[in-house]
Amino acid sequence: MVESSKVQKILYGGDYNPEQWPEDIWEEDMRLFKEAHIDIVTLNVFSWAQLQPSEDTYDFSKLDKIMELVQKNGLKVCMATSTAAHPAWMARKYPDILRTEKNGVKRKFGSRHNSCPNSPTYRKYASKLVEKLAERYKDYDNIVCWHISNEFGGECYCENCEKRFRSWVKDKYKTIEEVNRAWNMAFWGHTLYDFEDIVTPDLRSEEFEWDGIRTNFQGISLDYARFNSDSLLECFLLEKEILKKYTPDIPVTTNLMGMYKPLDYQKWAEYMDFVSWDNYPTYNAKPYEPALSHDLMRGCKNGKPFALMEQTPGVTNWHLYCSLKRPGVMRLYSYQAMAHGADTVMFFQMRRSIGACEKYHSAVIDHVGTSDTRVFREVSALGKELETIGSSILGARSKAEIAIVFDWDNWRAIDWSAGPSRLLNYCDQIKKYYYALWRNHYPVDIISVKDDLSKYKLVIAPMLYMCKKGYDQTIRSFVENGGTFVTTTFSGYVDDNDLVVTGGYPGKLKDILGIWVEELDALPPEEANSFIYKGTEYPAQVLCDVLHLRSANELAKYEKDFYAGAPVITVNAFGAGKAYYFATQSNDDFYKEFLSDICSECGVQPLLKCDEDLEVTERSNSNGDFLFVLNHSQEKKEFVLPYDACNLVTGTEYFKGKEIKISGKDAMILIKK
Amino acid sequence: MVESSKVQKILYGGDYNPEQWPEDIWEEDMRLFKEAHIDIVTLNVFSWAQLQPSEDTYDFSKLDKIMELVQKNGLKVCMATSTAAHPAWMARKYPDILRTEKNGVKRKFGSRHNSCPNSPTYRKYASKLVEKLAERYKDYDNIVCWHISNEFGGECYCENCEKRFRSWVKDKYKTIEEVNRAWNMAFWGHTLYDFEDIVTPDLRSEEFEWDGIRTNFQGISLDYARFNSDSLLECFLLEKEILKKYTPDIPVTTNLMGMYKPLDYQKWAEYMDFVSWDNYPTYNAKPYEPALSHDLMRGCKNGKPFALMEQTPGVTNWHLYCSLKRPGVMRLYSYQAMAHGADTVMFFQMRRSIGACEKYHSAVIDHVGTSDTRVFREVSALGKELETIGSSILGARSKAEIAIVFDWDNWRAIDWSAGPSRLLNYCDQIKKYYYALWRNHYPVDIISVKDDLSKYKLVIAPMLYMCKKGYDQTIRSFVENGGTFVTTTFSGYVDDNDLVVTGGYPGKLKDILGIWVEELDALPPEEANSFIYKGTEYPAQVLCDVLHLRSANELAKYEKDFYAGAPVITVNAFGAGKAYYFATQSNDDFYKEFLSDICSECGVQPLLKCDEDLEVTERSNSNGDFLFVLNHSQEKKEFVLPYDACNLVTGTEYFKGKEIKISGKDAMILIKK
Amino acid sequence: MVESSKVQKILYGGDYNPEQWPEDIWEEDMRLFKEAHIDIVTLNVFSWAQLQPSEDTYDFSKLDKIMELVQKNGLKVCMATSTAAHPAWMARKYPDILRTEKNGVKRKFGSRHNSCPNSPTYRKYASKLVEKLAERYKDYDNIVCWHISNEFGGECYCENCEKRFRSWVKDKYKTIEEVNRAWNMAFWGHTLYDFEDIVTPDLRSEEFEWDGIRTNFQGISLDYARFNSDSLLECFLLEKEILKKYTPDIPVTTNLMGMYKPLDYQKWAEYMDFVSWDNYPTYNAKPYEPALSHDLMRGCKNGKPFALMEQTPGVTNWHLYCSLKRPGVMRLYSYQAMAHGADTVMFFQMRRSIGACEKYHSAVIDHVGTSDTRVFREVSALGKELETIGSSILGARSKAEIAIVFDWDNWRAIDWSAGPSRLLNYCDQIKKYYYALWRNHYPVDIISVKDDLSKYKLVIAPMLYMCKKGYDQTIRSFVENGGTFVTTTFSGYVDDNDLVVTGGYPGKLKDILGIWVEELDALPPEEANSFIYKGTEYPAQVLCDVLHLRSANELAKYEKDFYAGAPVITVNAFGAGKAYYFATQSNDDFYKEFLSDICSECGVQPLLKCDEDLEVTERSNSNGDFLFVLNHSQEKKEFVLPYDACNLVTGTEYFKGKEIKISGKDAMILIKK
Repeated sequence: MVESSKVQKILYGGDYNPEQWPEDIWEEDMRLFKEAHIDIVTLNVFSWAQLQPSEDTYDFSKLDKIMELVQKNGLKVCMATSTAAHPAWMARKYPDILRTEKNGVKRKFGSRHNSCPNSPTYRKYASKLVEKLAERYKDYDNIVCWHISNEFGGECYCENCEKRFRSWVKDKYKTIEEVNRAWNMAFWGHTLYDFEDIVTPDLRSEEFEWDGIRTNFQGISLDYARFNSDSLLECFLLEKEILKKYTPDIPVTTNLMGMYKPLDYQKWAEYMDFVSWDNYPTYNAKPYEPALSHDLMRGCKNGKPFALMEQTPGVTNWHLYCSLKRPGVMRLYSYQAMAHGADTVMFFQMRRSIGACEKYHSAVIDHVGTSDTRVFREVSALGKELETIGSSILGARSKAEIAIVFDWDNWRAIDWSAGPSRLLNYCDQIKKYYYALWRNHYPVDIISVKDDLSKYKLVIAPMLYMCKKGYDQTIRSFVENGGTFVTTTFSGYVDDNDLVVTGGYPGKLKDILGIWVEELDALPPEEANSFIYKGTEYPAQVLCDVLHLRSANELAKYEKDFYAGAPVITVNAFGAGKAYYFATQSNDDFYKEFLSDICSECGVQPLLKCDEDLEVTERSNSNGDFLFVLNHSQEKKEFVLPYDACNLVTGTEYFKGKEIKISGKDAMILIKK
Repeated sequence: MVESSKVQKILYGGDYNPEQWPEDIWEEDMRLFKEAHIDIVTLNVFSWAQLQPSEDTYDFSKLDKIMELVQKNGLKVCMATSTAAHPAWMARKYPDILRTEKNGVKRKFGSRHNSCPNSPTYRKYASKLVEKLAERYKDYDNIVCWHISNEFGGECYCENCEKRFRSWVKDKYKTIEEVNRAWNMAFWGHTLYDFEDIVTPDLRSEEFEWDGIRTNFQGISLDYARFNSDSLLECFLLEKEILKKYTPDIPVTTNLMGMYKPLDYQKWAEYMDFVSWDNYPTYNAKPYEPALSHDLMRGCKNGKPFALMEQTPGVTNWHLYCSLKRPGVMRLYSYQAMAHGADTVMFFQMRRSIGACEKYHSAVIDHVGTSDTRVFREVSALGKELETIGSSILGARSKAEIAIVFDWDNWRAIDWSAGPSRLLNYCDQIKKYYYALWRNHYPVDIISVKDDLSKYKLVIAPMLYMCKKGYDQTIRSFVENGGTFVTTTFSGYVDDNDLVVTGGYPGKLKDILGIWVEELDALPPEEANSFIYKGTEYPAQVLCDVLHLRSANELAKYEKDFYAGAPVITVNAFGAGKAYYFATQSNDDFYKEFLSDICSECGVQPLLKCDEDLEVTERSNSNGDFLFVLNHSQEKKEFVLPYDACNLVTGTEYFKGKEIKISGKDAMILIKK
Repeated sequence: MVESSKVQKILYGGDYNPEQWPEDIWEEDMRLFKEAHIDIVTLNVFSWAQLQPSEDTYDFSKLDKIMELVQKNGLKVCMATSTAAHPAWMARKYPDILRTEKNGVKRKFGSRHNSCPNSPTYRKYASKLVEKLAERYKDYDNIVCWHISNEFGGECYCENCEKRFRSWVKDKYKTIEEVNRAWNMAFWGHTLYDFEDIVTPDLRSEEFEWDGIRTNFQGISLDYARFNSDSLLECFLLEKEILKKYTPDIPVTTNLMGMYKPLDYQKWAEYMDFVSWDNYPTYNAKPYEPALSHDLMRGCKNGKPFALMEQTPGVTNWHLYCSLKRPGVMRLYSYQAMAHGADTVMFFQMRRSIGACEKYHSAVIDHVGTSDTRVFREVSALGKELETIGSSILGARSKAEIAIVFDWDNWRAIDWSAGPSRLLNYCDQIKKYYYALWRNHYPVDIISVKDDLSKYKLVIAPMLYMCKKGYDQTIRSFVENGGTFVTTTFSGYVDDNDLVVTGGYPGKLKDILGIWVEELDALPPEEANSFIYKGTEYPAQVLCDVLHLRSANELAKYEKDFYAGAPVITVNAFGAGKAYYFATQSNDDFYKEFLSDICSECGVQPLLKCDEDLEVTERSNSNGDFLFVLNHSQEKKEFVLPYDACNLVTGTEYFKGKEIKISGKDAMILIKK
């Protein structure tokens, strides 16, 4: 990630907020960081109020002290810009800085991440602050990256945003006639005659009468989501430009949040020097879920290693039930991040706050204030391991032959769709397909619809409801050239504006798949159809297409209802490749079988053949090929090594065919000989 | 319904929105309509923005073209007035047209059915548009009816409505003292001294602190509901008057929605030339539910045949799970409408839209655009049948000896009541009693409290909580003259203003029923009492009256709790008739038994004795008596014909006593010989 | 409670609203009151609109009549001030009187208890009204107490409140730096530079993004709750001061509501002459729940007898399912109130209203209007019993050796905490410990953190999360001097501002308990750990501390998970006493065993050893010791008398050792010989 001569190892540290503490404990912090092998701190995340006590006053004295302190102690710095929470005086004096919520309620000062991205005040003073920061600290050679704002997010529906949305729409569509076409405004007589007629799509307008998820005009809501994401991205870019003026060589990032619907991270990542993100799996997350998020985040930047900017060393405070990370789990999750492409291991946070809403979120230094805690010991032990690992894996890349397509607009369009079923859940479908591959140890890339497919043997696009302009051709070429493509029910329906492609579903994918979907049946949760695949009966749930074969062949058919006998799995030979279609949704066992068969058929091999509780990935760079093996179970497991290798941390050497034992919750990196 | 020399058969067609499509497909639409035996289209439902592009401009050019097209193709027209969705420019320029929601939030442009009914702007421009439409199209002889606005509904709580509510209250009560009495304003010291003190009852005032259903002052909420219904009715009448000025002979309607609480359809129907309504049963509706809705809609206009204005040919998009209408079900539901009094079969919609919130609602012409779909084939086959049926059943009436009383104000008052139980559900109780009769093939009228009872042998008024002024006397006369009356727990409590009738429950019904209800026990859902009726034990749920016999006799008693032994079913001989009282709620089996016994006793016979999955109704006109038999199950069923008859569609003749087989989901009309 | 020469017996009566009725029934009311042995009525609760028909007019004519009527009929009066619902004209003319809700919505006229406590208009006119009332009625010698407003409650977030909150904060903290420290405003860069920067913590500010329960800055929310409680208390005191000016000898109260979070009743009670409260257990309340509420209310005023101001004679209308009080239960609950310190038995209400939201709440005189009802007969019979009891128990006190600590701020802080578990429920924990003692017949006081501990042998402070300034020292002294102290997981964490005490949990209680809690694990509802106590396995749920013994000993340990073997119950010998710690939550059986053992060990004896369904308390005064025995089951039970005694009502004498039978739902008072 942080490609810099300053960085020679996996950076290890996290958010540090000394300004929340009396200065007399700062030295103790330094001592404890050393004990924990910490080498980087993220500073200045929420200090705007301190740095700018009033409209005309700036005060960097405390930050100066902190910078001297951490430099003196040999710590690298991820330097935040403090623009994620505006000062109280600003909210009072310039209410335009406050957001208006989806229900029309104007916010007051409070909380965070609540500046209107289109507020002139916000942009003016954020720029001014960043300019001062960049100018003042540009020569500190321990600053390894800039961290703009924090967890950009949310939406605003204020009058400023409404005005700017009109401009955004005008820039995009040029004429009001084109807007009417794109949003299908003839429906319900919504035809516009002037850009001024456009209002924000919210609970006062097009999203009224629904359940807070769906909307009347998906086209407007989609464009507003794009506009909102772009507005926040503009704020990011405004700061980035200033930073680059002063420190062109220091990479710039902001911390992303995995599957976060409001921001199209695949677009954002284009503008970030490297991706960084915050990983907070819930208490009941399955191990493959953060794995998927890591792969998604890595995929946003074309596979480039990323930074794990935040994770909790022990407990996350905002979940419903804040269970402890069990012994070894913090290390296991840290290895999991590295296994999927992270080149840092960082925590939120270094010292646990004593007041406000994150005081029950754990930290490297707990409220007790000593190093005599389980969490500190685990942090320290991992720190030592990372020192041993050194620079070996830095920059190493994954090589996947399988890609799963993920698209933010598609996600939004499915969520906002008024029909066919409230059980539709795009991310869950992505998870189902991902999990089927993960548990069999196939490496996967999560890609966008802009990414090149030619390097993959197998491309899976679950519920590709929105097939964006040209993407059918991308898939067509891929399959024609020998690729294997898999898609599912509710694919190919609409264009970029959520307008249905007439002429029969799945729209422009019809020829590639060799089918025509005549009808789409939505089943309530208590009902299921079924089908038999390779002798086993599986459920057909949620959606069931009633389809007709054109050039495709049938691999399975429905067992029940009036469409009993109709095809439910099809395959179409197309050019040199094949296109599979799965006309419904099923259970995990099915996806596992189905994708294993397809992988075999297109010649994709798993990294290892071993227990499902073991997670296996591989990263490679000029130092070699690194095999990561993680045991997510509590029990000891074995696997057989496919080649000679050496444990990167312990130095133990193993020969091909060796049955290696790995303890419960343990993780290891093996370098191929 | 549409009593007109222009109409010689069951009209068959539906909503057609060519203005949402390029003109080059209009001719193809005409071809497909012909193929589907379509003979009517509803036009111009949502075209205001197109017809009036700005405050001073009207443009009828496209509608002119459409009218010429459909006339040329021999299609009749149900002509809508387009006032259900105001243009965007109007919302921008005249915000008074926008509603204020119950929570006080002012709406923006968006969605539909959101014009404030008391907006001067709305009324002015709606009138102006209708005048122009009537004037322009009055001479088209294929217009068979006017369709005002669309699915009138919702509420507004804006300042204009508040002002008009004050006038409405003043007109109704004359003095503020009378308002205080009617609303019991001495309670909680709410005494008003000026009409200006009146505010809308909403989440900012009397409905605060409750669950969004109940209210502090039921009297105010009831009057506001009446006012709101009246305000919308005024909008309807404003348009109707204009239309009648130009085309006095063309009947006028608007599409109702079955059990829709905000509008008192029994009052509305008085002002409509005929009733039309939109039938969208949910995916899990039982067959008797739409039957009840049809009977309710027919009853609003004293049994006059009605129009089925909308139904989906295949799938409804706004349900949680949009399951397909199975093969035959669209036809079955169409026959069900006719069986209960419909003289049209119409769809929403003719061609499926490609954008916005109804694109996953099915249509006669699907997104594929061809006639080669199951749905189209079923539509076309039914169209052909309807041609065969011709004019024979037009105008035919049902003859029921049983009536169930349904009252909108009673519904509202029960919903808003603060006590005795949140499990009270008026419509569910109506359904329970209706279902008991439906499954035994008794024809039923659903009547209002204004309707004459003398033509019935049995009148059932479940949970007649509000016994309006004079209605006790209506019932008293009915029973005295030999009628049989059935009512239940939570009846007779209050007057038209939801003020309790003192002197003991059930108020003015006490003498008729011969009982006094001392206490009313509400059971939580996990508890039940029980009673034995004719040797079988049934549950007593939700509410249990503790009552005393006066002149009545006991038919069953409670088995448990401190009121074990107290009467739970009573019957009172009163004049020449009888009055039954059921002091609790029970299960379907009980209602079936209980009502069968009562029917026998008062000499009411079912139309047929046959399987419960068969629905049976009869309609009669000068052409004869038509017996409708519908098989709602998947399996073939039999029934024995009680007289000689002939199948109206196939012409097959049957003799009395013949066991006729009817396939799963099939429907037939038999004309009595 | 009402210590006055005017009061010679348990006052018996309740809310009477003759102004809601025509005058011609008033005499009938008087007759029925006599029949029911009623001797007190609460008048004038909601009459502001009647007393002040306009800004400049007052009209006491009706109240004069009522006062004459009740005086003539020998009734005592609890005189309310009518300020709980402002008149409609006031809301219209002075909108500052209307509250602004937590979501920012400004209220309209409607409902009750909705005057902004900081409204200048409200305070001005409330004072003026009270002055007039006091002046006019001061010489009525049947007025036994003043009843200010009614059920004070709720919150306001308007601009007036915001301004006053700033002053309140300034008064409390003096400098903005101290505010920043107290609220930990350096977190998220919320540092304030001016008191004007302070805004109300609500859904527009710090409580945004949470679930309507939690908040971002607990310190602000805590202070706002204190401020709001204080603002309402100021309204109370404003009226009290005026009343005392005119009638210094008439005691003043207002009716409290048990566990009601917005108002800190322990603080309020200091300013009330006596405590009165309204007891409305829900349909499924367990018998110990109202017992606990009574003890809490009594404890607010250091054990002084209180008034049961309201209870329903039959049914409460605002519950979800309004089940009847079964025969005997009204009497049983009345005895329960007396058993816990009530010296009145009063009802809401005397005559059942016919309109608005409480018409289905029962009354002494029901809608039927006669005395011929079960409820009336029970009321009358109890009235007669109370006459027999006479003055004997007036002023009698309970003597408990066990105290449970209850603290309003602690409750709020736990509710608002962002972590560790949404399953945390302070009141439920209080109930668990109370129930364990109640079912074993130990008398308990519920005390505040200001109360003296020296009179107790055992003090239990479940989940004492907030250990206020000095309270650790209170506990320390108590234990050092031989007391036994019990506390639990999630105790000792924070100070009065919800700022964590650093140095290890449980903060300042560490030395007393002799432990250090390193980690706190929150379990989801579907998971549990376990431990063995005296041979029985019990579940460990919700929270599980991972703790280390310092000077304490372990009494039980976890059975599972990575902290298997770690202590879960500890005891620490400290000075002459002992301190127990329970590191998790368990089931009722455990608490019963655990507390029984501790009671034995510290020499606390139950009042009786008998069946768990019997409730037993004792009150003593100069007339003797009164043992209350209440049978909450339906079945007859027995108990053995520990001393000679006499039934206070029947006069029956019993000798020590006698096995006394008590019928289901019966209650008796035995006076010790």
